[in-house]
Amino acid sequence: MKNNNYDFGLVGLGVMGRNFILNVADNGFKAFGYDLDTEKVDALKKEGGDLEKVDATTDLNTFVQSLARPRKIMLLVPAGKIVDSVIESLLPHLDTDDLIIDGGNSFFTDTDRRETYLQEKGIHFFGAGVSGGAKGARLGPSIMPGGNREAYKEVQPIFEAVSAKYKGEPCVAYLGPKSAGNYVKMVHNGIEYGLMQLTSEIYDILKKAGNLDNDELHQTFASWNKGRLQSFLVEITSEIFEEEDDKGDGRLVDKILDKAKQKGTGKWTSQNAMDLGIPIPSIDIAVSMREISALKDERVQADELYDRPTPEAIDKSELVKIAEEALYFSFIVTYAQGLHQLGDASKEYGYELDIAVIAKIWRAGCIIRAGLLADITEAFQKDKNVPNLLLSPSFVEKVKSTVGSARLLVAYAAKNGIPLPGLSNSLTYFDAYTSSRLPLNLIQAQRDYFGSHTYERLDQEGVFHTEWEK
Amino acid sequence: MKNNNYDFGLVGLGVMGRNFILNVADNGFKAFGYDLDTEKVDALKKEGGDLEKVDATTDLNTFVQSLARPRKIMLLVPAGKIVDSVIESLLPHLDTDDLIIDGGNSFFTDTDRRETYLQEKGIHFFGAGVSGGAKGARLGPSIMPGGNREAYKEVQPIFEAVSAKYKGEPCVAYLGPKSAGNYVKMVHNGIEYGLMQLTSEIYDILKKAGNLDNDELHQTFASWNKGRLQSFLVEITSEIFEEEDDKGDGRLVDKILDKAKQKGTGKWTSQNAMDLGIPIPSIDIAVSMREISALKDERVQADELYDRPTPEAIDKSELVKIAEEALYFSFIVTYAQGLHQLGDASKEYGYELDIAVIAKIWRAGCIIRAGLLADITEAFQKDKNVPNLLLSPSFVEKVKSTVGSARLLVAYAAKNGIPLPGLSNSLTYFDAYTSSRLPLNLIQAQRDYFGSHTYERLDQEGVFHTEWEK
Repeated sequence: MKNNNYDFGLVGLGVMGRNFILNVADNGFKAFGYDLDTEKVDALKKEGGDLEKVDATTDLNTFVQSLARPRKIMLLVPAGKIVDSVIESLLPHLDTDDLIIDGGNSFFTDTDRRETYLQEKGIHFFGAGVSGGAKGARLGPSIMPGGNREAYKEVQPIFEAVSAKYKGEPCVAYLGPKSAGNYVKMVHNGIEYGLMQLTSEIYDILKKAGNLDNDELHQTFASWNKGRLQSFLVEITSEIFEEEDDKGDGRLVDKILDKAKQKGTGKWTSQNAMDLGIPIPSIDIAVSMREISALKDERVQADELYDRPTPEAIDKSELVKIAEEALYFSFIVTYAQGLHQLGDASKEYGYELDIAVIAKIWRAGCIIRAGLLADITEAFQKDKNVPNLLLSPSFVEKVKSTVGSARLLVAYAAKNGIPLPGLSNSLTYFDAYTSSRLPLNLIQAQRDYFGSHTYERLDQEGVFHTEWEK
Repeated sequence: MKNNNYDFGLVGLGVMGRNFILNVADNGFKAFGYDLDTEKVDALKKEGGDLEKVDATTDLNTFVQSLARPRKIMLLVPAGKIVDSVIESLLPHLDTDDLIIDGGNSFFTDTDRRETYLQEKGIHFFGAGVSGGAKGARLGPSIMPGGNREAYKEVQPIFEAVSAKYKGEPCVAYLGPKSAGNYVKMVHNGIEYGLMQLTSEIYDILKKAGNLDNDELHQTFASWNKGRLQSFLVEITSEIFEEEDDKGDGRLVDKILDKAKQKGTGKWTSQNAMDLGIPIPSIDIAVSMREISALKDERVQADELYDRPTPEAIDKSELVKIAEEALYFSFIVTYAQGLHQLGDASKEYGYELDIAVIAKIWRAGCIIRAGLLADITEAFQKDKNVPNLLLSPSFVEKVKSTVGSARLLVAYAAKNGIPLPGLSNSLTYFDAYTSSRLPLNLIQAQRDYFGSHTYERLDQEGVFHTEWEK
């Protein structure tokens, strides 16, 4: 039997889990890992070095008994039934006030169910989204915990130590009760889908309309990353264009199959936004585009049936300038949609979210970290009740000065047959959201015509029905 | 006690129920209605005239005992728990092989659950979507039944008699097992959302860019309805512009509040398409636009913060011509998406759907009836395995000859700040679906970069991972 003085336990020693636990150990907390796979256990022990600081086992009892009470056990296992089965296997070994933290992308209603179930048994349960990929887990991720506020204090020192830092401030904060943490992480990923789709569209138009080669694409994104578009995704995009193909000639990016996979968090974000009634078309279309990309065989067939316009000539440096502005505009609109959803979800599910705090812990560590998030944090610190970033005074000028380029680029792409669905949806969302009058009065008239669904009026209170048919 | 020789029972005597049962009686079947509301029962009796042909009661036992066996009982009550409670109240009175038909917009998994539950009790259960609004129910709706094929034969003569007719052919057919009927009706409604959104956008641009007044809008839509855009929705749109305001001056359409309501079937279509992985962005955006429309207070605030371009002058008759082509193009794309979803759902849920049969029974009676559906029927009769209408040879020319106008209109709207989100999504969907190469290779590279999610290659089989970071 080991000493029962390890500060932190971690179940699931895959890449994320191994990196996270090594990060914990590096920060002076004694950490103990558990996995059924001997190889993973051995790999961690080897990489950890000093077993007094980080140890691991395939034996559940040894694992649990090695942890100081109240135990703090984090799960980094795939979302779904495996989380329930790990919880069941842990339960007989736990004591009152022990804390289980689910660090995976669990669906938020699963987290609520598990919290209620474990509460009855005197065990605290936290859903804590972790973003930053393998490297983030190792060197500092953004962590999004939700659950019981008092219980959080037990892990707060560890999470604050291991998390990414933005100008010294930890990228972790208690976000709210119940599944607030998983929900925020879900929407984080939805925004991530949107930003990735937008980046891929800008790559496409720079290449097809501007004839930029991979070196020029690298330089363009690298230079953008030094300005207001500074972000992890723009940074890695610039690096991707440089990567040589290790299995052939040229650059690797040109050899990668254009079928994008997905693991579900983007889809959940869109589906749940629809349940809430919050429009997030820049994220919805990113989900659709991954689906269209997967229909490669159909696309190849369709391509043979239809012609495509030859892109009109466009000045390369002018295109790069317009593209930068359009990308900045559409990034803002995409964050605006995701945060709008969070604001509404907070009311609907009682999360008591503080959007400024969320933007703050996204400034470093996570996949959607970006210079913009410092501005967004400030905007919500100034007015925490603004329902949409587009209504925040500090964003009006940023949007006004770039929307013109989004208009030019969408217009060019529409005429020239280059699909920019994410950018188009960001623009039409903006144009609709900023329209005091939309033509949906016609839809209300149609609904009342064929289904007697009634309508309201602009000039009078009440609900009306008309016998339209003569 | 009544004679037990009524051919058809109907529960729920609201507008739809009353109209449907009168339609049944008009076609020579003796029909009996049931509702807890005495006024509704009396209204039906009065309107029906001859109690030997159509009668009604507030007494459940009288209702059930009046029906010939096997009983055929249709429910036209709101979707949700009320359907379950009606079923529970009926059950003690029913005999083996009686048939319950849910004619409402029930969610398809509810229908599957109810069918399984009732099967154990020897009762047949059908989900049968009914479209056509109040008038359709009275004079001939499109009916979409799914369930046990043998049991369907019992109601087939009644449904075929009461349904709408297209050139003599009834707009009803057995569609498939289980919840096939409710599923098809759900997607019908999703397409309906898409077409309504597109119609409202074209109204908007004709008004804002072309300065068409309501008389000109009436004439434009009326003339379109005589051509290839002939459809119920275009027809009623033309009539809506004529309607005088009975509470003030001018036309009613201008007084209607631009907040569109929804009852959920469009949302379900989008959410389920995401579960299937089938892209239907023209429908998704219609759901989003109803949501944006509902945010009227935010829109009014936003409108004050942002300028909008003054629309460039455009020749009115040229605009009308372009708009007609763009609307035709986007109608096709929207049907294509919905039918694509049906094809995939058929495999996923084992519905064995025949898309040609579905298009056929949509040609008359239902809200999305349109001249186009005759062409769509023929296209799927020629090749029932074509996964997407855009791949059907008979549609290539229709699309090729109109997509140019969609390009012009989307480009104009983007530049001039008029939101055409449905049309934009139809165009970008088309441009993406017909692209053998999309830029989502970049997304796969990004995913592999930050999450080691691996990628495939264009030139080699297998799954690859690269250590991108230097």
